[in-house]
Amino acid sequence: MACGEFSLIGRYFDRVRTSRRDVETGIGDDCALLTVPEKQVLAISTDTLVSGTHFLPDISPRDLGYKALAVNVSDLAAMGADPAWLTLALTLPEVDEDWLEAFSDSLFEQLNYYDMQLIGGDTTRGPLSMTLGIHGFVPAGRALKRSGAKPGDWIYVTGTPGDSAAGLAILQNRLTVSNPAQADYLVQRHLRPTPRVLQGQALRDLASSAIDLSDGLVSDLGHILKASGCGARIDLDALPYSDAVKENVEPEQALHWALGGGEDYELCFTVPERNRGALDVALGYHGVPFTCIGQVMVASEGLRYTCQGEAVTPDWKGYDHFDTHEK
Amino acid sequence: MACGEFSLIGRYFDRVRTSRRDVETGIGDDCALLTVPEKQVLAISTDTLVSGTHFLPDISPRDLGYKALAVNVSDLAAMGADPAWLTLALTLPEVDEDWLEAFSDSLFEQLNYYDMQLIGGDTTRGPLSMTLGIHGFVPAGRALKRSGAKPGDWIYVTGTPGDSAAGLAILQNRLTVSNPAQADYLVQRHLRPTPRVLQGQALRDLASSAIDLSDGLVSDLGHILKASGCGARIDLDALPYSDAVKENVEPEQALHWALGGGEDYELCFTVPERNRGALDVALGYHGVPFTCIGQVMVASEGLRYTCQGEAVTPDWKGYDHFDTHEK
Repeated sequence: MACGEFSLIGRYFDRVRTSRRDVETGIGDDCALLTVPEKQVLAISTDTLVSGTHFLPDISPRDLGYKALAVNVSDLAAMGADPAWLTLALTLPEVDEDWLEAFSDSLFEQLNYYDMQLIGGDTTRGPLSMTLGIHGFVPAGRALKRSGAKPGDWIYVTGTPGDSAAGLAILQNRLTVSNPAQADYLVQRHLRPTPRVLQGQALRDLASSAIDLSDGLVSDLGHILKASGCGARIDLDALPYSDAVKENVEPEQALHWALGGGEDYELCFTVPERNRGALDVALGYHGVPFTCIGQVMVASEGLRYTCQGEAVTPDWKGYDHFDTHEK
Repeated sequence: MACGEFSLIGRYFDRVRTSRRDVETGIGDDCALLTVPEKQVLAISTDTLVSGTHFLPDISPRDLGYKALAVNVSDLAAMGADPAWLTLALTLPEVDEDWLEAFSDSLFEQLNYYDMQLIGGDTTRGPLSMTLGIHGFVPAGRALKRSGAKPGDWIYVTGTPGDSAAGLAILQNRLTVSNPAQADYLVQRHLRPTPRVLQGQALRDLASSAIDLSDGLVSDLGHILKASGCGARIDLDALPYSDAVKENVEPEQALHWALGGGEDYELCFTVPERNRGALDVALGYHGVPFTCIGQVMVASEGLRYTCQGEAVTPDWKGYDHFDTHEK
């Protein structure tokens, strides 16, 4: 941490609610010192969030503290990993104590929820942005990778992708939802997505591949297909929608948001036919819907869409940001 | 990595020169998957470098690629750890391919030198800055911490602190050094500091505490004293100076830079009397000078300075940035 005025910041983050046994030294030395449990592999992911690109500039510090951690924990969930440690590099334009208190309170609430510990970081002055380094464990040989999908495997998603895009549209006055409960539901799906940690862990021995939905279903499924050397068929009429979307969004717009909206942080995963029964049992416990939306094909089939069993070609015209927005 | 224009950036960093056996999955999945060797503890440090604060805005991309890694490896050196993996979150104002090629070439040269592997990261658009997460190993129970100094231990530094501040002064036209070799030496100590990795490892069983000099000797030694609950006496006439500083810098300015200049990335460490002989042998192999500059005292003594055996109070007037610059 820095000297002078910025050293003030340290005290908002130098608090340990969760004291993990695998943390020998946390904040306060040149490095943190940590132990990885036997027979566990370390999973690490790094994400930068920049104001105006990854979150709205007027986001509340509490929502930002939540979302910054949630989108990173989601990367661990997509590997079937168990969250453990966080590093936070925070760049702030000024020392705003109210902001810092709300942001750090919210962050530590979430860290506590996941039994995670903040083990280090840095604070610098500049335009608001942050880089989180997230660390978790997964039993050796059991991580969910993007590269394991095989032709014939079934493609699933958790939850109802597109809700986050609808929530963002409400915040930006591009969508009006008159039912307050439904409007709130959609906005919360955008501001407070739920990392599917337990689902990821339950999928360890059942799914052949997995990814979390940050860029949008088509884009993220594309990463699985590329890494696995496969094609796929998506059944558009199988896509799951929330009631809030079904009742407030035109079907074409809802389809577009489901396929390309991004920031849902649901899991997309593939399951071999032989594991489908076990999957229904394993994920059934968790109370979050999961839906089969298509099937993995050989690479030469590319990515196809069907509706009512017929091949269709969605018309993306007018959706120029589709699949090109920066992560 | 991001979609669209920024995906270009990926190819500058998605190259593996060093392929470590402990990296199961590197770049290209939701997380990297890594194995920590048995009986080793994981050491992690995170640093953000912002243009204009941590490096001059006109720094060459090659020098920046070098320095960004060096200052982070230095944190591992200060723990006695062996470098292993890097994560890089890079924020760039635009896609400048010449800049990216020079920066990444230089970074990978250094990664290769340390047998390190880039295991992940993120690329975003914004004002130039970067956050590096650095990971290394240290045998369990043998890490050099800040908290182990005891009254009576001797205080050492490697190299000649103050050289980096003199080099920065040359770059900023605040110091003129007519001898080109000496000017170049000082500028290089600022642009290309050497992390004392082998020295840190050699100190594992000899030093009672250690830190690297990023903020300046007094400030960084202060972290050891605070963590160890001790005071200290610094012998000002024992401070080591390079010939380039001795021959070109006024003694008062040289003293100020040695004590408060920062960015030397030398090691400051404490050694019990019984280990001084072993220290001379262990560090003697490495060809870098190391100098005893004082002694750890009980906390009630505070931080004192002596010269020729007499107590002195340095006059810091006119040095208003001393010990207050942001890291």
